[in-house]
Amino acid sequence: MVKVAVLGYGTIGSGVVEVLVTNKETVTRNAGTDVEVKYVLDLRDFPGDPVESILVHDYQTIIDDPEIDIIVEVMGGTHPAYEYVKEALERGKNVCTSNKALVADYGPELVKLAKEKSVNFLFEASVGGGIPIIRPILRSLTVDTFYEITGILNGTTNYILTKMYDEGGSFEDALKEAQKLGYAEADPSADVDGFDAARKIAILSGLMYGKNLNFEDLSIEGIRHITKADMDYAKFLGKKIKLLGITYNIAGEIYTEVAPHMIGPDNKLYLVDDVKNGIELKGNLLGDTMFYGAGAGKLPTASAVVSDIIDEAKHLHTNIPIIWSDEPVKLAERGRHRSKFFIRVDRDCDDIKNQFEIEQLVTLPDYPDEYAVVTTEMTFADFYEKIGDKEHVRSIVQVK
Amino acid sequence: MVKVAVLGYGTIGSGVVEVLVTNKETVTRNAGTDVEVKYVLDLRDFPGDPVESILVHDYQTIIDDPEIDIIVEVMGGTHPAYEYVKEALERGKNVCTSNKALVADYGPELVKLAKEKSVNFLFEASVGGGIPIIRPILRSLTVDTFYEITGILNGTTNYILTKMYDEGGSFEDALKEAQKLGYAEADPSADVDGFDAARKIAILSGLMYGKNLNFEDLSIEGIRHITKADMDYAKFLGKKIKLLGITYNIAGEIYTEVAPHMIGPDNKLYLVDDVKNGIELKGNLLGDTMFYGAGAGKLPTASAVVSDIIDEAKHLHTNIPIIWSDEPVKLAERGRHRSKFFIRVDRDCDDIKNQFEIEQLVTLPDYPDEYAVVTTEMTFADFYEKIGDKEHVRSIVQVK
Repeated sequence: MVKVAVLGYGTIGSGVVEVLVTNKETVTRNAGTDVEVKYVLDLRDFPGDPVESILVHDYQTIIDDPEIDIIVEVMGGTHPAYEYVKEALERGKNVCTSNKALVADYGPELVKLAKEKSVNFLFEASVGGGIPIIRPILRSLTVDTFYEITGILNGTTNYILTKMYDEGGSFEDALKEAQKLGYAEADPSADVDGFDAARKIAILSGLMYGKNLNFEDLSIEGIRHITKADMDYAKFLGKKIKLLGITYNIAGEIYTEVAPHMIGPDNKLYLVDDVKNGIELKGNLLGDTMFYGAGAGKLPTASAVVSDIIDEAKHLHTNIPIIWSDEPVKLAERGRHRSKFFIRVDRDCDDIKNQFEIEQLVTLPDYPDEYAVVTTEMTFADFYEKIGDKEHVRSIVQVK
Repeated sequence: MVKVAVLGYGTIGSGVVEVLVTNKETVTRNAGTDVEVKYVLDLRDFPGDPVESILVHDYQTIIDDPEIDIIVEVMGGTHPAYEYVKEALERGKNVCTSNKALVADYGPELVKLAKEKSVNFLFEASVGGGIPIIRPILRSLTVDTFYEITGILNGTTNYILTKMYDEGGSFEDALKEAQKLGYAEADPSADVDGFDAARKIAILSGLMYGKNLNFEDLSIEGIRHITKADMDYAKFLGKKIKLLGITYNIAGEIYTEVAPHMIGPDNKLYLVDDVKNGIELKGNLLGDTMFYGAGAGKLPTASAVVSDIIDEAKHLHTNIPIIWSDEPVKLAERGRHRSKFFIRVDRDCDDIKNQFEIEQLVTLPDYPDEYAVVTTEMTFADFYEKIGDKEHVRSIVQVK
């Protein structure tokens, strides 16, 4: 029998408690032992809820209980999550978490601490929700040199972009719908401005190189500026617009960014719609490998958290090695990175079609006072030099 | 420093040796130690090849060398592979293999033996080539109840079916092309008659339930009977024909089969073309999860084998637990399983359209003397009763 404490009884926390009951048989078989939730920590009361009798408001009760072997941190936010997790590891308890902010900010430090204490700090649910991706990177994809990792890593923005594509509405309308359905928060910035995706691609890429990638060092562009017109052109070009987190490793030169991109059906991520996530990896031996699944949601995320609980139940006092040093990943200058660009511009401005090498030029009857081009591939440095002060430019989207 | 011996210097074996050299840096970092190939076992000589100096013809040299910690079995076939692997495990050496025949026939026994000897028997490359699937099933997908596993698991047949779809040729022509390109063997039976896919779905499903699934107990149908006409109808219906290995678990009733199916673009496997593989899992918590990648080929397969070598280098004398007992999976009667059916029949035979509940009836101008139907979903028992002696029936393909 292994006893766990769940910190936070929100969506994921209640999911974890539920999954340990509903899928008890599979959990017990794979863990080799029963897993029991002894405490749930939350500031709120839940009168009438099954967890009422095991609810505590004080972390001290949990950390002081020698019966607790595994602490499940699903509170979100970095404080006090960081302090709680650190104390738990210092006192020889295993921790698993779904908290990407915590992992992005403190991953290497907490991994190191767990190793020193011969326990584990696991975080499968922090990226890709229910998609197994952290463990495959750490345990299976250990041979290749990966020259590209591309992910649709944020379900909220993917829902919004899918809705704009399918129904032809505006960003604002799609966001409102996402908020109504509980996919987006009242303050949607973390999602729509790309920070959530940036944390996730930073975690994946850091783990891939065994080094630390600070998400604040990334070039991050969200989707607020994507309009119905952009989507109409994308559709005409046979493409969709997706918010991608990408790390390129070109001959050892690493560049990471989060930005909306137009992608076509030749790209495996083209089919990843709604709140789903997909992660594509290109390795020097494996070629293209893709993982697809539920990137968020109560039960898929809880399933990933519980897979960590099972792993920890089997390794209570044995550290499963994770190579993730705090040495920073050295990123290349953005200017050296290459892309194609989609540019919409006022019809009476000839600069764009004259100054760029053009792959396609498009005019659409619905937008008579403008035209659009897709450039050939060029460096960001060249692009910014040529685009100048952006006068007459209505929008710019990378094309992959 | 960990020393390995590679049994068999064919495509995969030479790939393993090559990968350990080309990707040495990543391997050493992830294994935490250097990995050196001390011996290659093959009956043949390879004058001038880099392995010439470490080539041995006698297994005894390898098994008697106490420096050898890991044996890489990539000979294929069950004998003497089984005897070699068994002896290696008995003498406390780790083994990894890409040999699906060995794993399908002796998996539970060899897993048990490895456990008894505190070493490891790993086989990531035996299913899905370079796609990480065995380890995710054993380590990550440990919480859900999976009610369906569907895979395109054989690259050769997928290449043939893709070619027939794209170019409109016959099975025979596509097979010849596959043989010319080295995708199919001179005797293509293991691939085109479905046995290879059957072994792989049996391994995946067995591991999923922690029990033994003998592939010979499966219903197995290959693709030899698929004609240009079948493919033309499939295309007209907006579908492709794919050879699927499927395990359904409907309320605890398990049914496994390998058979060609028509699938539409709503199915994630629709996009898995050429020699690629794809595996879709449907869980009670995760919903749909899909893995896609290179299902075969020298370097992808070698990459998966080397990921096992790395895992074993980190756990030389610690068994990584795998739950796979020799208790048989209890399979449901085929008659109780449900499917839709595509049936092509002589035009002057009205039996089919009268006796079946029909979802679609199709006639194509190129085939004036026949018609085709897609039935509604029905049990196999019902289907066989109604179809009778199959007189006038030209072909039958399941529709998913």
